[in-house]
Amino acid sequence: MGSFVRVAPNTATRAVSLLRTIQYTHPPSCPCHSNPNHHHHHKHAPVMPYARRAKRGFATPQTEQPLKEYAFEMAASSIRFGNGVTGEIGMDLKNMGAKNVAVVTDSTVDKLRAMEQVRASLSEENIKFSVFNRTYIEPKDHSIKEAIAWAKPLNPDVFVAVGGGSVMDTAKLMNLYTCYPDADFLDFVNAPLGNGRPVDKPLRPLIAVPTTAGTGSETTGTAIFDLVSRRAKTGIAHRNLKPTLGICDPLNTATMPAAVKASSGLDVLCHSLESWTAIPYTERVPRPTNPILRPAYQGANPISDIFSLSALRSTVKYLPRTVHDPEDHEAQYQMLLAATLAGVGFGNAGVHLCHGMSYPISGQNPGYTQQGYEVDKPLIPHGVSVAVSAPAVFRFTGPSNPERHLQAAEAFGVDVSNAKRESAGEILGEAISKFLDVLGDQPRGLKDLGFNRENIEELVEGTIPQARVLMLAPGLAKELEREKDQLRVLFEDAMTR
Amino acid sequence: MGSFVRVAPNTATRAVSLLRTIQYTHPPSCPCHSNPNHHHHHKHAPVMPYARRAKRGFATPQTEQPLKEYAFEMAASSIRFGNGVTGEIGMDLKNMGAKNVAVVTDSTVDKLRAMEQVRASLSEENIKFSVFNRTYIEPKDHSIKEAIAWAKPLNPDVFVAVGGGSVMDTAKLMNLYTCYPDADFLDFVNAPLGNGRPVDKPLRPLIAVPTTAGTGSETTGTAIFDLVSRRAKTGIAHRNLKPTLGICDPLNTATMPAAVKASSGLDVLCHSLESWTAIPYTERVPRPTNPILRPAYQGANPISDIFSLSALRSTVKYLPRTVHDPEDHEAQYQMLLAATLAGVGFGNAGVHLCHGMSYPISGQNPGYTQQGYEVDKPLIPHGVSVAVSAPAVFRFTGPSNPERHLQAAEAFGVDVSNAKRESAGEILGEAISKFLDVLGDQPRGLKDLGFNRENIEELVEGTIPQARVLMLAPGLAKELEREKDQLRVLFEDAMTR
Repeated sequence: MGSFVRVAPNTATRAVSLLRTIQYTHPPSCPCHSNPNHHHHHKHAPVMPYARRAKRGFATPQTEQPLKEYAFEMAASSIRFGNGVTGEIGMDLKNMGAKNVAVVTDSTVDKLRAMEQVRASLSEENIKFSVFNRTYIEPKDHSIKEAIAWAKPLNPDVFVAVGGGSVMDTAKLMNLYTCYPDADFLDFVNAPLGNGRPVDKPLRPLIAVPTTAGTGSETTGTAIFDLVSRRAKTGIAHRNLKPTLGICDPLNTATMPAAVKASSGLDVLCHSLESWTAIPYTERVPRPTNPILRPAYQGANPISDIFSLSALRSTVKYLPRTVHDPEDHEAQYQMLLAATLAGVGFGNAGVHLCHGMSYPISGQNPGYTQQGYEVDKPLIPHGVSVAVSAPAVFRFTGPSNPERHLQAAEAFGVDVSNAKRESAGEILGEAISKFLDVLGDQPRGLKDLGFNRENIEELVEGTIPQARVLMLAPGLAKELEREKDQLRVLFEDAMTR
Repeated sequence: MGSFVRVAPNTATRAVSLLRTIQYTHPPSCPCHSNPNHHHHHKHAPVMPYARRAKRGFATPQTEQPLKEYAFEMAASSIRFGNGVTGEIGMDLKNMGAKNVAVVTDSTVDKLRAMEQVRASLSEENIKFSVFNRTYIEPKDHSIKEAIAWAKPLNPDVFVAVGGGSVMDTAKLMNLYTCYPDADFLDFVNAPLGNGRPVDKPLRPLIAVPTTAGTGSETTGTAIFDLVSRRAKTGIAHRNLKPTLGICDPLNTATMPAAVKASSGLDVLCHSLESWTAIPYTERVPRPTNPILRPAYQGANPISDIFSLSALRSTVKYLPRTVHDPEDHEAQYQMLLAATLAGVGFGNAGVHLCHGMSYPISGQNPGYTQQGYEVDKPLIPHGVSVAVSAPAVFRFTGPSNPERHLQAAEAFGVDVSNAKRESAGEILGEAISKFLDVLGDQPRGLKDLGFNRENIEELVEGTIPQARVLMLAPGLAKELEREKDQLRVLFEDAMTR
């Protein structure tokens, strides 16, 4: 075999067609097996090694089709997990030689056990630290900028984030813009809203201490915020934003009120469902011309599958228990573990429609506040805004990969032994609906949040910029007008359930 | 809750006893579920947060029992996986700004596709590199020292390892001793044979390109070699030895002869079986007084379990196919994936008796050469030396956790629905035996390698120094004479099957 095998375009085209056939027809080998249906390794799948040709810009003259991806990459933060493990953080910082630590939190968590432990542990090791506790929940660009403005003159050598996704994401961006003090805020923001500049150097170490079992942000290089002027959520995603270490201490999540447990757990549910059903990485275009351009959100792959399915099964089992019984420490432990596993899964595979649609849903909130949240202005928690459309989303995506949708339904306890492939989306949508009802206090569609049919156009317009996740949605059209039509139908379907 | 909860010794003792009860009695919740039997998260398990007391040296006056571990840590190299992905390495090195690369390989691999691709890719990006191709298979301390002597004056800014475990392990040690030029060779070697000095600074980047589907060394911080003067294998294990990136290209493993596929696959089999059945991390003593002292080989934990069981199932399914059909590219892809998954599993959980006993087996080889290996002196390949004792080992460890042994047997296709718990070890041992017979050309016990009962004493003496892995063996006595008795019985049982 030569060093660079050149695949003739017609071979490539045939390969793609074969891959498609296998994707939609190959039955899973065993329901216990965690990565079936990955067609890229099938005996007959032709080999398409990295070709020089790929470096010239994807398109071959005959086909004008960009080359599809042929590889995936798996990266995650180191994770330390255990009841009480927060108390080790002072020693970690001392081991790292930290001299000037920025501790990022919010005003609520600042009063809780997690921050008490962090302060005590840093003090015991005589680590010099400053606390920023003005993180916004569901952060806005202006709250991020305020946090960055605080961090720049401090110029810390290590960042520590203690809180939920909002805190961890804010800390990642404080770290980024402290390391690039001259960058414009939009430089690194995901295209098309920002300039999508790649992060081309290592940042400072960041230790993340999650206090919710939700975002999995302790394992990922993703940071999400509201770009207020555009009424849309966007973010920055790059592997270099990943925390160095996630310190996962189930005792820190005990302080969540039931409503926060529910909504953060629904985020885990959707991370696992969306990454499990995302397009396979081998369907993503274009194949990157340089490995540094391979996105973290790659599409489903054989390693992310293992994490996603495992997290889904745990969430179905333990989320209702942890919401309904504050003393159920096993459920609490398992939900934090599931959040972390789902974080590794979606952190390397991506999410799609539930997340893409959630950003305008929460950004264009007509005035809803989730029961159990004590806030001074309306708030649709992130997990609620992703889960509210989930039944509609998986009804839509079902035909793309019926086997995977049935396996997901099976994780909810549905007997799928006699299920028809064409009903896979319907069955999974129904299973999710029931799960949300059992969880309790969840809106039964967008109408319950105060949306109506007149809002659909603006919701669709707010979803379109989420290109980074929409590109992973199975069955979504690439052509803009057709894509908008599909989104209109999806929002319509998500109005009630 | 105060910052440091002090657990009264009698509470701790009760907790341990309760944990033991749960460990040995709790049935798995679902055979499809990948991490059952983890007792540390059970509802009634008392919370034992990190206490200041732990820093004083473990023992409480009343019990004199060292505190057990309460947390686990998960770390792995980033992995890039795909057919043909080797061709990206030049761009990776350019992205890293590499100016002077040491490429480490062996004389066989130097002539194969993998090295051809690496040379072409580095040349295309105009990366300056030097090749060391004198790595020994099953490296010895003198071959490692020779490699280090080559690397020190070169003082490369990045290392690249292209080969099997022997090459990757040699490259890790070249990196270590280039970064610590004044260290004595035994300084970092695992105690008791070496001084067990911790690696207290980051090393240079190392990119690993495995050409066998076996060691999983591309994901771990472990390097193994023969210490000739002691007739024992030992090694160096520290997270800082981990490669920065593993480039896993199934096309590179196509060049393995069937015999090499078999023996490297048996290493994967034992990595997954041993890490799955290792003592749970919560049973490991002592609890480290500083997180930097927490070993990579921690005992089974809920994340390593997911990797280990998944790798086991794949190995059972794909190893015979890849050995018997050189054109089965799916099996080849899946075996490299399984090797990598098992690497993450055992890299964070550890191995135990098969590996501990294998080191004197291969080191004291009476003159056996594995069929299909073209070598100029006797050689028991690593995978053969670990698998030969596996039936005996799992018969021995069965009672420690019958559920896990039955689940493992189920992965081999055994119907365990009516199996008795007390037969779990016997059933798994039998399943492994049959698997080895189907694979073909495998010794049916130590006698086939040329050992006899007179060698047992020396084999036992050669096993005892493997403290790092023996401490993870379930059911093995802590008291030396009792431990030796158990090992004698194990070697005796491993003579034939």
